[in-house]
Amino acid sequence: MSGAQARERFRAGHVAPTSGWCAGLTQANLVVLPRDWAYDLLLFAQRNPGPCPVLDVTDAGSHATALAPGADLRTDLPRYRVWRDGELVDEPTDVVDLWREDLVAFLVGCSFSFEGRLLDAGVPLRHVAEGRNVAMYVTDRPCRPAGRLQGPLVVSMRPVRADLVPTAVQVTARMPSVHGAPVHVGAPAALGIRDLDRPDFGDPVRVAEDEVPVFWACGVTPQAAVMASRPPFAITHAPGHMLVTDAPDAAYALP
Amino acid sequence: MSGAQARERFRAGHVAPTSGWCAGLTQANLVVLPRDWAYDLLLFAQRNPGPCPVLDVTDAGSHATALAPGADLRTDLPRYRVWRDGELVDEPTDVVDLWREDLVAFLVGCSFSFEGRLLDAGVPLRHVAEGRNVAMYVTDRPCRPAGRLQGPLVVSMRPVRADLVPTAVQVTARMPSVHGAPVHVGAPAALGIRDLDRPDFGDPVRVAEDEVPVFWACGVTPQAAVMASRPPFAITHAPGHMLVTDAPDAAYALP
Repeated sequence: MSGAQARERFRAGHVAPTSGWCAGLTQANLVVLPRDWAYDLLLFAQRNPGPCPVLDVTDAGSHATALAPGADLRTDLPRYRVWRDGELVDEPTDVVDLWREDLVAFLVGCSFSFEGRLLDAGVPLRHVAEGRNVAMYVTDRPCRPAGRLQGPLVVSMRPVRADLVPTAVQVTARMPSVHGAPVHVGAPAALGIRDLDRPDFGDPVRVAEDEVPVFWACGVTPQAAVMASRPPFAITHAPGHMLVTDAPDAAYALP
Repeated sequence: MSGAQARERFRAGHVAPTSGWCAGLTQANLVVLPRDWAYDLLLFAQRNPGPCPVLDVTDAGSHATALAPGADLRTDLPRYRVWRDGELVDEPTDVVDLWREDLVAFLVGCSFSFEGRLLDAGVPLRHVAEGRNVAMYVTDRPCRPAGRLQGPLVVSMRPVRADLVPTAVQVTARMPSVHGAPVHVGAPAALGIRDLDRPDFGDPVRVAEDEVPVFWACGVTPQAAVMASRPPFAITHAPGHMLVTDAPDAAYALP
């Protein structure tokens, strides 16, 4: 399926997590803020490039992106989250009626982009095999603040067989625009994560005896900053329900 | 000499191009704009990461940077340029009296960071051997505009022996935060450069019979955008007169 075909389905009302859709095409996290807050978010991203690799920023009011010509950012994601003063107030399937001329949309790289590479390199991914959303955790590690925006680092976790950890590190290190190498290997407590069975976002996943939990910086981090910093209005994607772009994952891999 | 020692010399009034100073330490381009223009510059950098790799952004009014603890951005560069409405009005050796609470300073990666690697890899650099500033050219290639900021891509040029061009490409491709791989090899006219002997910034350099002119995106590009877009007030470094930081060049090289 092409990116345009996937977006057309979501525009028509289909709702599903996008993991596994359109293999080889980059998926992106969405954060939409009023223009008045856009500098703070762009600076937050500059200061926290691991969790917040910015792939594109729209001009205020525009709902088009260079990453997916013809896409409408108001309708083409399967599900959105709407935030007022940092509180989640709705999870609609489009945001046409909420769009404003002063809104700026940020598209942020997503770890789905390196999952194909991990599978190609022989690193199995249990959440993919089981058709579930990846497990995500809010850590106790603060991001560098920027203006009014602050918040914790959010990570995604994948169990990796101990002998495959070096492969997983090397494969993902070659994709710094989509979170890059893991931030942590093996010690959830060191990140302030108490119970791997209770992720803050996504679905829990079993860690087998011969596996290690490996943590990557996660594009839900700006969403956590919205929750913590309470801008008057924001729209994000619903976790796991990303924008499918037309940009190939390969465009974000180092030569 | 340490970075702090170099900065102390410049603070005391010494004026010299910084090429060759403090080998192994990252040097940075400086662009200072009023807060009102800072979003446009940060967005311009996001949309033009080749010429504008942002290494640090200060909070408004601050003249400190995480890249060089103890440094004062108002005094520690050897020479500055002051711009009003896009016109160069002064080239002082400090900007203490011009500093304002609404100013935001951007530190942008510099190709000096990869010159040591090129030399280590056996690629001679004539401007370094001759103790001259690198040659820089304004091209006819427009950057992607952002808000009120627009302007042409500026490139630096180094003559490279034809058989060493692949080495030069591979070495610099490993440092994407400091301009990365060349944007062009061999055809100045294709970039709108009419006469290699007349650079727009820096010093001309001879290209020998067995050499090819190789062009890298240059951190003077945001300065050209200031000239073209005419913000009411701006401060930059004088070309070749960079901030010497404490960050090792190695921090910007891929593993």
